[in-house]
Amino acid sequence: MQKMILDVDTGIDDALAIAYAVSLPTVELLGVTTTYGMAPVDYSCRNSRKILEVLGATDIPVFRGSENPLQRIREYNGKIHGTDGLGETLGPVEGPVSSSQHAVDFLIEQIYEHKKDLTIVATAPLTNLAAALTKAPEIAGMVGKVVIMGGAVMTPGNVTKFAEANIIIDPEAASIVLESGMPITLVGLDVTRKTLLTRADAQQWREKGTPASTFFAQFTEFYLDAYSTLHPYLKGCALHDPLAVGVAVYPDLVRTVPMNMKVDLEDNALGRTTEDLYRTTEPTTLVCVQVDAERFMKDFFAHVV
Amino acid sequence: MQKMILDVDTGIDDALAIAYAVSLPTVELLGVTTTYGMAPVDYSCRNSRKILEVLGATDIPVFRGSENPLQRIREYNGKIHGTDGLGETLGPVEGPVSSSQHAVDFLIEQIYEHKKDLTIVATAPLTNLAAALTKAPEIAGMVGKVVIMGGAVMTPGNVTKFAEANIIIDPEAASIVLESGMPITLVGLDVTRKTLLTRADAQQWREKGTPASTFFAQFTEFYLDAYSTLHPYLKGCALHDPLAVGVAVYPDLVRTVPMNMKVDLEDNALGRTTEDLYRTTEPTTLVCVQVDAERFMKDFFAHVV
Repeated sequence: MQKMILDVDTGIDDALAIAYAVSLPTVELLGVTTTYGMAPVDYSCRNSRKILEVLGATDIPVFRGSENPLQRIREYNGKIHGTDGLGETLGPVEGPVSSSQHAVDFLIEQIYEHKKDLTIVATAPLTNLAAALTKAPEIAGMVGKVVIMGGAVMTPGNVTKFAEANIIIDPEAASIVLESGMPITLVGLDVTRKTLLTRADAQQWREKGTPASTFFAQFTEFYLDAYSTLHPYLKGCALHDPLAVGVAVYPDLVRTVPMNMKVDLEDNALGRTTEDLYRTTEPTTLVCVQVDAERFMKDFFAHVV
Repeated sequence: MQKMILDVDTGIDDALAIAYAVSLPTVELLGVTTTYGMAPVDYSCRNSRKILEVLGATDIPVFRGSENPLQRIREYNGKIHGTDGLGETLGPVEGPVSSSQHAVDFLIEQIYEHKKDLTIVATAPLTNLAAALTKAPEIAGMVGKVVIMGGAVMTPGNVTKFAEANIIIDPEAASIVLESGMPITLVGLDVTRKTLLTRADAQQWREKGTPASTFFAQFTEFYLDAYSTLHPYLKGCALHDPLAVGVAVYPDLVRTVPMNMKVDLEDNALGRTTEDLYRTTEPTTLVCVQVDAERFMKDFFAHVV
């Protein structure tokens, strides 16, 4: 079994990533750590918990993490994921639903416990991981693998032409993580934009008619609507976060290039992920440049939902 | 034999590319087309001719091409290649030395004659190719292969953080070429910065002591000096243009990603080469993302000079 923690800001495609990880028989999901991102952190907690409930996986703990970027202000508009983070399916948050341990402490504790056997899949702004690295820098060399959905290396960003959302929301955190020396696999828009869920896929969930598949169809259709407005050149909505889970479990889904990466912190290209020419040590990041989208999609729909 | 035309702005690494192509037993070099770039076009002509003379290859014709970018002004500072384009070894140009046919017409004529059997290796601003495509758009689908030294896809540029020299000098021409549908292999800084000629390599040419090796050592040392000032993080000077010849002859020197590319023409990222999300047809460009630098360097020095 592959021991895994998901660090998420659930979020529609985070929800799909949780569902995928829970459903994979080779994955032991130790916990879900949350952060602000597509909605405030309490929404990420509640939404993650709700997804686990719907899937009958309430034994998996959810940890509340960072509330804000390290040095910036996050504003929410709900355009892509809804004001509740799940396509206006759940409404406002009512009360705290997470474990009492802080997400950052859980991450550090679990790295100490499982070391090279632990895979962290981060599909949110990288604030939790940056905070963990700041509190316990030694974890960079201890953890097995960190698969990050983030960045746009060969392709334009989705927030600006330079930057992808998870990176630009907290670029200082992303910079800390990408320069930490952690063994990172960077699953950026370069590959996630090739894994598209279509309206026909959501319709299949509707037709299946179980409570879970109906719920999933409902929030995914919100996401599809947002995509058809914001990214009309794509033939569906991108499975960003589920692909990160896929790459963590099946590394040969992607072709990668080893490279030391940096995050541009200058205003004129904020959040751009590019090669770090000045760090000439052995590369610690594998940048995904190509994906077998067909194989991934097949596996994803075989398991979800 | 692989029929090849080199489109150059000689230029120190262009000179090395010419020497490499001339020396490879499987290459039939049909001609050298020139453009402005590192120095005015008459220097590119004279320098190309001089290299061919030194190598005893005066049967290869040199064609004079474009004098200026399509829509911009080119200014020369001689910092990297010298005011004469060859490290201050040759001084001012004295008279015309090229064939009477224009480079652009020679390119079109040869594509018509050799079609899929022709490889064009372009290691200069892409003005000649853009002019050929404007005059005879049908050549895009006729030519065998176009290997371009240009661009910076995963890595920062060398003129600005966004752009590589051959692209930013004439971005409108590069845009025409990259969007033409020609079968392009893009040999960018992503790979050329990994193929470094060192001071020890130049010293070996000095020690060999032939007229050719001495001349090559002389202008290459100028290039090494420029690199140590401008790019102190690199351990030598990049063999940009020779690598394009290498990739044309040995495609398996590199790993590539098929992708439709565009050139950013906006002022805030002028000359950036990135994926063209809006062109959803079958990719026509192979972007080089990794190179077997050791194998390339070995082959290069086995042949040059």
